[in-house]
Parts: sequence; structure tokens; C-alpha cells
Amino acid sequence: MTDALFSRIALIGIGLIGSSIARDVKALGLAKEVVISTRSAETLRRAEELQLGTSYTASAAEAVKGADLVIVSVPVGASEEVARQIAATLKPGAIVTDVGSTKASVIAQMAPHMPEGVHFIPGHPLAGTEKSGPDAGFEGLFQGRWCIFTPLPDTDPEALRKLTAFWTALGSRIDEMDPQHHDKVLAIVSHLPHIIAYNIVGTADDLETVTESEVIKYSASGFRDFTRLAASDPTMWRDVCLHNREAILEMLARFSEDLAYLQRAIRWGEGDKLFELFSRTRTIRRSIVEAGQDVDVPDFGRHALDKK
Amino acid sequence: MTDALFSRIALIGIGLIGSSIARDVKALGLAKEVVISTRSAETLRRAEELQLGTSYTASAAEAVKGADLVIVSVPVGASEEVARQIAATLKPGAIVTDVGSTKASVIAQMAPHMPEGVHFIPGHPLAGTEKSGPDAGFEGLFQGRWCIFTPLPDTDPEALRKLTAFWTALGSRIDEMDPQHHDKVLAIVSHLPHIIAYNIVGTADDLETVTESEVIKYSASGFRDFTRLAASDPTMWRDVCLHNREAILEMLARFSEDLAYLQRAIRWGEGDKLFELFSRTRTIRRSIVEAGQDVDVPDFGRHALDKK
Repeated sequence: MTDALFSRIALIGIGLIGSSIARDVKALGLAKEVVISTRSAETLRRAEELQLGTSYTASAAEAVKGADLVIVSVPVGASEEVARQIAATLKPGAIVTDVGSTKASVIAQMAPHMPEGVHFIPGHPLAGTEKSGPDAGFEGLFQGRWCIFTPLPDTDPEALRKLTAFWTALGSRIDEMDPQHHDKVLAIVSHLPHIIAYNIVGTADDLETVTESEVIKYSASGFRDFTRLAASDPTMWRDVCLHNREAILEMLARFSEDLAYLQRAIRWGEGDKLFELFSRTRTIRRSIVEAGQDVDVPDFGRHALDKK
Repeated sequence: MTDALFSRIALIGIGLIGSSIARDVKALGLAKEVVISTRSAETLRRAEELQLGTSYTASAAEAVKGADLVIVSVPVGASEEVARQIAATLKPGAIVTDVGSTKASVIAQMAPHMPEGVHFIPGHPLAGTEKSGPDAGFEGLFQGRWCIFTPLPDTDPEALRKLTAFWTALGSRIDEMDPQHHDKVLAIVSHLPHIIAYNIVGTADDLETVTESEVIKYSASGFRDFTRLAASDPTMWRDVCLHNREAILEMLARFSEDLAYLQRAIRWGEGDKLFELFSRTRTIRRSIVEAGQDVDVPDFGRHALDKK
């Protein structure tokens, strides 16, 4: 058991991310008390059954009372509502952070509500799976993953140091960037891939000449790799699309332009153009594996797992 | 050791698929002799080092002499050349099959060259990984995967029965369909996903505002799922694009149409349309897992593999 970093932590939202934080905090002894709050009575009850915290309340305003660290883990579209609810009961000197996938929008929604003397430090742990809800979380989710802070110009260095120590204890590697750059980076590495995955699964679902059962049966030949992302939480991803609109539209425009070029090469039988692109993309995969961001087993190691 | 199904098998092409077949044939004792042939001297030498067969030759014409079963595992664009090379030396009564990802084109390329008395049965095992070459193959690759035959109208039932027994011994499940339908099904479950994956990785590679090292560093948030497919063999995929053009162009058109709809919904803030699509796609993932076509562990089980 590490020394408690915080006396009391409040977790607002207890889905995949919130509940993984809760599990790590408990396992590592990072706080004396962990107050859990979520809007849904059913989810709150489930969090209690799983013994994710030390107390439970449906009221976010109640939850943050006396907390040294408040972590907001809700769909980004709900950020302003939460900020409004907790503003009056935040303890002076408390650190408030979030885990949202878009940063400029979360800052615009939350910063204006934060009272003087409270340290608001926007954050984004780049971790998750396609599952959602309090049962989906697990210990070690953040191990070796990046957590990006987008501190505001007046961020207190001591508060930032404490929050860094917290995420480092969870195994995360820390980065800092400005919110606009964060939103552009995430638009390409995360938002566009999810949108494309949702789109291709939708296209397949709508075909008249190929049945859904054929799509499912033969999915191992490529399609299934997209279905993992397309099984992600719909509320979360609707909110991401609505709250990082400009950067996403820019990436979509580039993607479509490139696809039109590829389509034309296929139509006109320009094998050299196809070969050039298909060769260039191979090296990126290699770099990702070398950077420790994916496992170096063929087929994501599905064969190895199958045999267990 | 099973009773040998064939006295002599010739494998033309010894990449990921060919070498996996060779390994299974050896492990299961499915043939007395296995002759391996490939154009590249280096690959042939490597196949011999790996002891994948019982004899080795650079000449496809030599290789098929006296073979009861000939399996052609080359990029689909090379099918006609192989057919031309082996036509004169095929043994009467031999079965010739292939493993190509497109079927109408392979039939058009090979069937005219097949001599009277030889049984040409086009086939396609839906199995593989992102790796290529003789070292990439492994025993059990076809276990639980589908193998689709697209028999010609005059296919000999006894030859089909023998080829079915062969693929069944390798653990495959067998399906039959006509070549045109095969090409449409594969266009959506395999060819479009690969093209989209190549395209998005290319788009990311071309950005000026986000660096390649950022893309790699933060790829675990979605992007990396695409890089596996985009690391597939460029020659194979160039040929697939050129040899299943019509079906691929149709799927690309539908995909782009759907993406334009989604893009418009993002631009105009139509959250309900986004939510509807993002919910619908979730159920397909569930069906794929239930059908045994993917592993039911979060994140493809990368965490489980990491900890090994």
C-alpha cells in the first residue's frame, strides 16, 4: 500500500474509465476515502455491489464536499452540467480534472464555473476498451498508456505535480499539450478511426446483395477488426463528434479526398499507385509495435487466446 | 498420423498461406511427398531451410509432375502465368485448386489453360494474418476458419469430395457459392476493410499539423486497429484491387455515400442520427463474437498478452 496521495477522492461518473480509476485507487491505496457519484440509480447500486468506493451518492454536489481530488468521467456533452452542479460545494484548494476525449470543448464548458481557489486541470487518459459501464473497468487499464494534460495558463504547478503523481501511480506516462493541438491529434488517432469503423459497419449492415449472416460468418477476413471500435459507447461517441466538430470535419475531408484518389486508381487499373500506398503504410505498423503501443503477435494474438 | 489423402502434393507459392498448408500437411501426414515451388530463389531456399516439403524446385512445370493435388498460392494477378506454366505437365486426373481472394478473375485466368481430365476447383480459405512470407505461416492457421469453394458447372463430385476432405483435415469449415457472389461478399468483408485501413493510415501519414511520432505514440486510442490490416502484403492487395474492381468500386461508392451522410450530421450537430448509427453497429460485434469469429476479450486481449 502506497501512502495515500489524497485524503478524499470524488469520482463523478463510474463507467469504464471511472470504475478502472476506482479499482486502481483501491488496489494502490491512493486515497483514504473514495466517494462515487453517478446519475443513474442502477449504475450507482452496481458500483456499490462491486465495492468500488467507500461511499455512494446520486448527487454530484454532495460527492465533491471535502474532496481533495475530483475526477469527472462523463460523456463530454455532460461536462457543463456537472460543473454547474459541483461548483458551489467544491472545497477550496481542491483539484478538479476530467478524462474527456475532447479538450477545448470541455474547458469551455467547465472553466467558467470553477470557483476561485479551485485547480481545474483538464486531462485525458488515452486508454479504454470497446466495453462500457462499471463492470467493464479493470485494474491496470492505464498501465503504460499516455495521459495528456492540457493545463490552463494559470495552472498551479503544485496542483499539476500532485495530479501527475496520481496518474503516474496508475502506471500512466504523462504528456502536456495545448487543448487545440490535443483535439487535432485525437481527431486523427482516435475520432476518425471510430467514425470510419462505425460507418463501414453501417454500410455492411445495409447491403441487399450480401446478407448480414454472411458478413458475420466471414468477418475474420478483415471486417471484424472494425467492429471492435464500432461497438464503443454510442453516447460517448455522439458527444465526441459534436464537441470536436471542426477538427473531425477537417480529417474527414482529407480522408475522403485520399479515398477518391484510391478509388480512381482502382477504376483505371493504376497498380503502381496502389502498390506505393500499400507499401508505405506497412512501416507505420512496425513503428507502433516498436513504440510498445501494440502487441507484436500476428492477428492481435487471437490464435494464442483461442487456444487458452 | 492420418492416412495420406494424396500421394503427392505440389505447392506453387510458399508465402503465409502456402507455408501454413505445408506445415499442416507435414504435421498431419496428409501426403507422402510435398513438392514446393516458388519463383524467388531466396524464398525457395528459405522453404528448404524450414523443411516445409520433401523437394524444391524453381520450376512450377517440374513441381506439378505426378502431383495428385496442386495448390496455387500466389498473388491473384499471377494466376494466369502459373496456369500457363503448369498446363502441359499436369497429371491426368490431378486436382488443381487455388487460394486467391478473388474468384471470377482467377477462373477467367486459369480455367482456359486447364487440360481435359484435370479437375480445377477454385477455392479460398478465409484465413491469414498481417504477416507474409514462408516464416509467417504456422500450423493451425485454418482451424475453425471458412474455406469457400466456387466450383465450375462441370466439377467432378469425387474430386470435390477429396478436396473437401483435405481442407476439413486442416480444420476448415467448407462453404460453396458462385464466383460472382463470392467476389461481392469478399468485397465487403475483406477488400473494403483493407482499402479503408490503407487509406486512413495514408491520410495520417500525410498530415502537416500532427507529427508521425504523435500518431504512433497515441495510436492505442483507435488508430492502431487499422494498422494491422494496413500492414498486409502490398502485392497481394494491389492484385485484389485490380482483379475485383467492379465489386470493390460498388462497395466504395456505398461507403462514401454513407460517410457523406455522417459528415453532414456532424456538421449540423444532428446528434440523434449519430446516436442511431452508433447504437446499431454495436449489435453486429456481438453477433460476430457469438458466431465464434472473434475473441470475446476486451481490446482483442492485448492486455492478457502483454502480461505474459
